[in-house]
Amino acid sequence: MNNSIIRYILGCVLKIETILLLFPCLVAIIYKEDKGIYYFITACICLVLGILLTLKKPESLVFYLKEGSAATALSWIIMSLFGALPFWLSGEIPSFTDALFETVSGFTTTGASILSDVEALSHCSLFWRSFTHWIGGMGVLVFLLAVIPLSGGSQINLMRAESPGPSVGKLVPKIKTTARLLYIIYFGMTILQIIFMLAGGLELFDTLAITFGTAGTGGFGIKNDSIGGYSPYIQWVVAIFMVLFGVNFNMYYLFLYRKWRKALSIEEVHTYFILIIISVTVIFINIAKTIGSASDALRHAFFQVSTLITSTGFSTTDYDLWPQTSKTVLIVVMFIGACAGSTGGGIKVSRVIILVKSIKKEMASYIHPKCIQKIKMDGKPVEHEIVRATNVYFVAFTIIFFLSVLAVSIDNKDFTTNFTAVLATINNMGPGLAEAGPAQNFGSFSIFSKIVLMFDMLAGRLELFPLLILFHPGIWKELFIKKRKPGQKK
Amino acid sequence: MNNSIIRYILGCVLKIETILLLFPCLVAIIYKEDKGIYYFITACICLVLGILLTLKKPESLVFYLKEGSAATALSWIIMSLFGALPFWLSGEIPSFTDALFETVSGFTTTGASILSDVEALSHCSLFWRSFTHWIGGMGVLVFLLAVIPLSGGSQINLMRAESPGPSVGKLVPKIKTTARLLYIIYFGMTILQIIFMLAGGLELFDTLAITFGTAGTGGFGIKNDSIGGYSPYIQWVVAIFMVLFGVNFNMYYLFLYRKWRKALSIEEVHTYFILIIISVTVIFINIAKTIGSASDALRHAFFQVSTLITSTGFSTTDYDLWPQTSKTVLIVVMFIGACAGSTGGGIKVSRVIILVKSIKKEMASYIHPKCIQKIKMDGKPVEHEIVRATNVYFVAFTIIFFLSVLAVSIDNKDFTTNFTAVLATINNMGPGLAEAGPAQNFGSFSIFSKIVLMFDMLAGRLELFPLLILFHPGIWKELFIKKRKPGQKK
Repeated sequence: MNNSIIRYILGCVLKIETILLLFPCLVAIIYKEDKGIYYFITACICLVLGILLTLKKPESLVFYLKEGSAATALSWIIMSLFGALPFWLSGEIPSFTDALFETVSGFTTTGASILSDVEALSHCSLFWRSFTHWIGGMGVLVFLLAVIPLSGGSQINLMRAESPGPSVGKLVPKIKTTARLLYIIYFGMTILQIIFMLAGGLELFDTLAITFGTAGTGGFGIKNDSIGGYSPYIQWVVAIFMVLFGVNFNMYYLFLYRKWRKALSIEEVHTYFILIIISVTVIFINIAKTIGSASDALRHAFFQVSTLITSTGFSTTDYDLWPQTSKTVLIVVMFIGACAGSTGGGIKVSRVIILVKSIKKEMASYIHPKCIQKIKMDGKPVEHEIVRATNVYFVAFTIIFFLSVLAVSIDNKDFTTNFTAVLATINNMGPGLAEAGPAQNFGSFSIFSKIVLMFDMLAGRLELFPLLILFHPGIWKELFIKKRKPGQKK
Repeated sequence: MNNSIIRYILGCVLKIETILLLFPCLVAIIYKEDKGIYYFITACICLVLGILLTLKKPESLVFYLKEGSAATALSWIIMSLFGALPFWLSGEIPSFTDALFETVSGFTTTGASILSDVEALSHCSLFWRSFTHWIGGMGVLVFLLAVIPLSGGSQINLMRAESPGPSVGKLVPKIKTTARLLYIIYFGMTILQIIFMLAGGLELFDTLAITFGTAGTGGFGIKNDSIGGYSPYIQWVVAIFMVLFGVNFNMYYLFLYRKWRKALSIEEVHTYFILIIISVTVIFINIAKTIGSASDALRHAFFQVSTLITSTGFSTTDYDLWPQTSKTVLIVVMFIGACAGSTGGGIKVSRVIILVKSIKKEMASYIHPKCIQKIKMDGKPVEHEIVRATNVYFVAFTIIFFLSVLAVSIDNKDFTTNFTAVLATINNMGPGLAEAGPAQNFGSFSIFSKIVLMFDMLAGRLELFPLLILFHPGIWKELFIKKRKPGQKK
């Protein structure tokens, strides 16, 4: 195993984090907050460590899927550990577990908070919290791929580990160009949202914080009532942009290159919009009676569906108080999630399509046993390997899901709370229902449960296997034992 | 499609049901109950219809998987429709939907009841209720295979549709002999339990009713508190026999033929017992504090685990009042279910083993991408086709599960109730938690929800696809449209 490349990548990630940490320092200077010093201290620690780790160039720039997965998982853990430092050092979040929970929740774009009073935080901390969403949304390794030189074919293994979806979203043959294009689209759409938000008369600070949360489909609010206190215009803008950030970025890439027809014919995107329309309609009919005006009901229904299908987790109202049908629709869209190749979480629409098609295929095989069918997406047959991986992903997801619910049940909270807390973290959503509902927070969970939920957040963001293999004994053997034999290569 | 064989099989099933319906008549005579007449009337209707349907021998005895599946699904539906008649005609269950729910619940060995006062039923109805469990446990088509002559290779398609588990449990090359052996084992173990129960001083009627419920892993009690009122000895006997009926019958077959070593080395059975031991230990520790004596705590823990892992659904205590960890352990074992080739329900231990192994394989492929691994069970590689079918089964199970929870949520009951009601029916368990808990019943659900839950019970018992393909347009085309072209064969 090529350990030196993992070390080198971790060093680069820390250097990037140094630069990122300077932004909250700037915010602290503008708002004259002395908490900014802790961000500066953390930035310095990251810089020193980053330089130390990258002093020696790696012997080889070639790496395989295992190195790519391990590097990705370790990068996310290290980023979270250092990202949590300022919260803890400044005393704004006194417990380190809580600070880490908040940071993991930020980077993984979950948006589940342990804070009961968000508004008490300093501006720099509020900014950092939301900024982590933006960073985590597209992924720091995708950024790394856009800027550092790594050798050809093996880069795909980093991208594969960090990008969401059943197959890797390579827009163009060159990974570096793909990574750059993704960040250009991401940046462009973020700017667009900022313009729309400012046009609605919102302050710049609020605009930035909410836009970061929307773009990364994160969901940390800077107010205790999330987005509920903002004007309907702002709520509509946020809801629409959440949906847009949940679309497969492949579509925007095709738009950029003016391949309109191809862009508008992506099956996953169609299904995604159909799901949204159906869910909004069902909820609208279900809640219209209880909410006075039809426009309010429509806004709330659309906002909650878009926030939960994209796994953002903002809220405009306490949907835990809605009728059970609406709540169940929301739970179902939570599971499905957004499109592959977007910043959203969940199982992903394309996986659900593949799974449903494999059931149809199975049924057809009962009726016509001799007819061999291939599952198709966008008119092209889906590779057997992707169908298999999708199935295994789904099984692993469900097993981790239930083991987590089992682990969290030690706190003796009710089943709805445990079930939706795990659902909300593994799908990188944020709030669940009952005691983990939108008007509540995760502060009341035990340290053990918080660790389980942090694991779920990372597992959800990295789509299980890159994180899981860190727990495979084979990796540790390769990382440490093989290292001691310098004669042996790879 | 060979429609005539489907008609013929349905006719045979009705003839068998005629004979089965004579047993409650006998009970009515013994207890001098006039309700017995309704069982006799129904038996006569079944006989007439059965004779009419079997008057003409089928043109061909050959049938394929589609005919096998359709025949099985239709047999179960018809058996339930006629089995519900006496409850409804006698007025003991005034609503036909409720009567049907109770009968489907009986035949599918679910044991979910809509009755709030079971003890008010006549003896003949109580007997019929429990007897349906015994019939459904091993399956009426397996019985059919043991008695009627069907041509060689195609019989497997009937067995495949009715037998639980990822691969067909053919004990010996000849299906007829397999079916007979299965019924001999089933009968023998039932007799054994009856002896143990009678030795505990229980009345014959109670003994029969409870033994039928145990053998079929059904779970209808004849008392309002299920098994709670019986002596600890009886509770232990029932708990142990539930576990035994949840074991893969393959083991008993090997015992019969004195292949001790092979019998004791079945991986699925090992895992099944390990799961039981772990679950009982966790629950015992978790509830020991609240329940005074250790022996009581152990008995309740063992009883509830064995009743839920085998999907029986008897109860000795209201476990809905237990701490959340115990409840979540119970939910997890509910999902897993018993062994394949047993009378128990659930996803089945062997499927879970295959699924977990496919995840391990996936992880290993990250570390050693070039090493091709095969999933093994009992030392032998599992066919690719079985792994694929297991994955598809799991996906279909989950999708039906959540669509059902969504459908049932229209009644506006809480999430725990909806979730565990669907869980309890699709896994053929019986009671769930909260409003569907062991101390409650399913009577308060709407007609629509009851229909959804009946579908789930049948889908669970027939392991999804035989029932699902009844909803496939291809089957209807073949059943009705092709029929009109007599020149066309098959």
